[in-house]
Amino acid sequence: MVNNKGSASGLEWRVKLNDGSTEILVPETNFFRRIGLRLWGSVSQLVLSFQSFFKKAWELGVDDPRKFIHCLKVGLALTVVSLFYYMRPLYDGVGGNAMWAVMTVVVVFEFTVGSTLYKCINRIVGTSLAGVLAIGVHWVASKSGEKLEPVILGASVFLLAISATFSRFIPTIKARFDYGAMIFILTFSLVSVSGYRVDKLFDLAQQRLSTIAVGTALCLLVSMLICPVWAGKDLHDLIIRNMEKLADSLDGGIAEYFTDNSNMDEKDCRKKLQGYKCILNSKATEDSLANFARWEPAHGNFGFRHPWTQYLKIGAMMRNCAYCVEALSGCMNSDINANECTKKHLSEVCMKLSTHSSMVLKELAVVTKSMTKSTAIDFLVEQMNSTVEDLQTTIKSLPTQFSPPSTGLEGHAEEKEKKDNPIISPIIVPFMDVIPLVTLSSLLTEITIRIEKIVQAVDELSMMADFSTENEKKKNQQTNPDNENEKQGDQETMKALQMV
Amino acid sequence: MVNNKGSASGLEWRVKLNDGSTEILVPETNFFRRIGLRLWGSVSQLVLSFQSFFKKAWELGVDDPRKFIHCLKVGLALTVVSLFYYMRPLYDGVGGNAMWAVMTVVVVFEFTVGSTLYKCINRIVGTSLAGVLAIGVHWVASKSGEKLEPVILGASVFLLAISATFSRFIPTIKARFDYGAMIFILTFSLVSVSGYRVDKLFDLAQQRLSTIAVGTALCLLVSMLICPVWAGKDLHDLIIRNMEKLADSLDGGIAEYFTDNSNMDEKDCRKKLQGYKCILNSKATEDSLANFARWEPAHGNFGFRHPWTQYLKIGAMMRNCAYCVEALSGCMNSDINANECTKKHLSEVCMKLSTHSSMVLKELAVVTKSMTKSTAIDFLVEQMNSTVEDLQTTIKSLPTQFSPPSTGLEGHAEEKEKKDNPIISPIIVPFMDVIPLVTLSSLLTEITIRIEKIVQAVDELSMMADFSTENEKKKNQQTNPDNENEKQGDQETMKALQMV
Repeated sequence: MVNNKGSASGLEWRVKLNDGSTEILVPETNFFRRIGLRLWGSVSQLVLSFQSFFKKAWELGVDDPRKFIHCLKVGLALTVVSLFYYMRPLYDGVGGNAMWAVMTVVVVFEFTVGSTLYKCINRIVGTSLAGVLAIGVHWVASKSGEKLEPVILGASVFLLAISATFSRFIPTIKARFDYGAMIFILTFSLVSVSGYRVDKLFDLAQQRLSTIAVGTALCLLVSMLICPVWAGKDLHDLIIRNMEKLADSLDGGIAEYFTDNSNMDEKDCRKKLQGYKCILNSKATEDSLANFARWEPAHGNFGFRHPWTQYLKIGAMMRNCAYCVEALSGCMNSDINANECTKKHLSEVCMKLSTHSSMVLKELAVVTKSMTKSTAIDFLVEQMNSTVEDLQTTIKSLPTQFSPPSTGLEGHAEEKEKKDNPIISPIIVPFMDVIPLVTLSSLLTEITIRIEKIVQAVDELSMMADFSTENEKKKNQQTNPDNENEKQGDQETMKALQMV
Repeated sequence: MVNNKGSASGLEWRVKLNDGSTEILVPETNFFRRIGLRLWGSVSQLVLSFQSFFKKAWELGVDDPRKFIHCLKVGLALTVVSLFYYMRPLYDGVGGNAMWAVMTVVVVFEFTVGSTLYKCINRIVGTSLAGVLAIGVHWVASKSGEKLEPVILGASVFLLAISATFSRFIPTIKARFDYGAMIFILTFSLVSVSGYRVDKLFDLAQQRLSTIAVGTALCLLVSMLICPVWAGKDLHDLIIRNMEKLADSLDGGIAEYFTDNSNMDEKDCRKKLQGYKCILNSKATEDSLANFARWEPAHGNFGFRHPWTQYLKIGAMMRNCAYCVEALSGCMNSDINANECTKKHLSEVCMKLSTHSSMVLKELAVVTKSMTKSTAIDFLVEQMNSTVEDLQTTIKSLPTQFSPPSTGLEGHAEEKEKKDNPIISPIIVPFMDVIPLVTLSSLLTEITIRIEKIVQAVDELSMMADFSTENEKKKNQQTNPDNENEKQGDQETMKALQMV
């Protein structure tokens, strides 16, 4: 049987065999070349995909260089802790338990100071509690005879594992002590069970604790002293960034709808308009940042008991507002085209409202950023609300826009028809065309209501966190004339206010 | 000096001292009683708060008994693995490394089979890779002289820690191999560094691997054989539950707006109406479930490569729809009251539309639940779309509803005014009143558009996952007459269709 697959075209060498059949001679070089080509193809494809993977990874780091720095910090901490093994005196001191120091560094070192602290404290407290309890149980077990000992130890492991595992399902414990509960089970099982063999429980427990303490101390030092990444500051910045994004999407979206911005940079513009989408799914990030921020000591402008949970409330209010912006963008992209004439009529007031709303949001961002009570915010909210009233007045006057162009020139028949059915004929057509605009204005109005709730939440934050007033700030500036930037920022806000 | 704080009222005993001052005798029992009372108060408060804490925790378990079972499973696995320590032959076999088995069970045992598998596979692969690499590096280092050895080992730990830590920032690796990368760093550091002392690297690595294998095997057995919790099935059920919630909120919300449901059970009704809020924040849960489901073997109706990512797409579409429902509920609760007459006029068609929309969603839930292609869905979508058209026709006819009651009876002056300004007078007032209703209908229309996208996504799922058709199902039923329930469900759907 001769397999002649793969020789479908081109020159062929055939050999007549003894049994009468012919065999095609496929040049071997061709076969190898094909394999070579295929190999080359897959290798180059692999190289290309690796290249794009590394390019993306590199961009990830370039976008946030703190990630590179974090990697260096982990490498540094691990190399330092390895010294425990290299240096003989230290090695003799802590013995084989030094591996716990390495393990602690690997497991505990996280990106933010808050999460590192969370893990450190949980690890130390969990280990200590479990150690003490395990030694106690072991003492009781050792006093109760050889037969009962394994039973008591086994039962205690079983019961404590059950209760600690269950505690991890309880939301408050899950949020704050999940890692601690795991370490508790781990240490309790290890100590109570290994104590059955080792009989040097106190030494073991003390050694483990001291190595873990060394590991955590090293992690905390590196994490807090070398370019620290504070979860609290991250949360603060995230909220500010989201406020700005929401403002940009709102303002940009409405402007795009009412004007023909074909000369704007498409990609950049699209990115700005889609900014609110980040807010829709930011809950998980905000929650975890606030959770870690709680563990952090005072840093920058944030005191020890800075009201981080209030940031979550502001975040929730912003998400609430973003839902409306989402619905708004859906309505603006719907198939029903609005009447051009009405659109023009409403464009001015709608754009004014969106500008004023986004100015409120931007002012809130400034307030949160500078942690200063704003003097302008009340005025801006007032302005926004009065524009809402303007919008409603404009909508009220809408029907006057739709007198058919022939009004006043109509003949007798038309006059009669109109009398019989006084409203329908001039309204039917425009009414459908007005619907998208009416919806847009209602949603815009709803958005302003939700923005006011954000204002309220930020106001609560300013009370809780004791934001300084402008006057206090000025006094500080007189004694410390560094803050020229913020002063300039205020002046710019006032200029913008005067221009509107 | 005499301290007479705390003796402000009642009978007093005074003793005249030698220096002329008087001392008040405060009865000691009073002091102790006060302390006792205070202690009693704080103890009883503590007991009360503990009681409420435990009550909440208990309810958590009662709501989902699988949590209790999970705790029992963890206790069982831990107690079994402790046998390694109790039984001497086993202990002699795996030596001090048996602690790795205990540690593996504690760290790896998670709630769902998928997450346990994820951690098991990551742990084994990470440990093996790092072990091989560490032994290789150690061999190179040992050949390069005593001075270079620590340098090579330290540098390799530093470099690998950096790259593995950085890889954890890359989204695809973070989603699938985060734990593996951590275990990789951990094992590499431990083996390469401890190898400097122990010189029994192969033994150490082999022992660690075998104990970890024992631990993971035990975890997988217990996790998969005793009441397994499948992440995939959880995701499937979550999506179905969310579809039903969305349908209930939509239907209930509109019905509540248009009718006065004062005789409905308030609390239960509120809960139903707020159902859509669960969907708004379900992204994180869905993502993690889909992530873990990927690791699971075939189970129930789900094959090995079940298209779990498509569930994420359906989830995203539902969230998209829920944003609109949120905006809708905001508009329905706004201060502007709609004109009662218009409301009545629109109520029928709006309620019909919301019912039809929620019927589509409920049918999608049935389709996803039974994994059968629906014959009714096209008809239901058609019905929904035709109701949208009805709604638009009704809105078109709205202006005819607002001819002022006095039309035709007005005097000459009014007649003249009307001619000059033919439309404003009869429209201005009702137009403002109509706005909430127009917004509501636009949002309802937008919601139907988004529901169609959910239909499309579920349709894609039915293709990808090869949902059977009704006929195939019937054939199966003939051979296996167990599925009477679903048959009944279909009949109920058809009955409901006929009634609408």
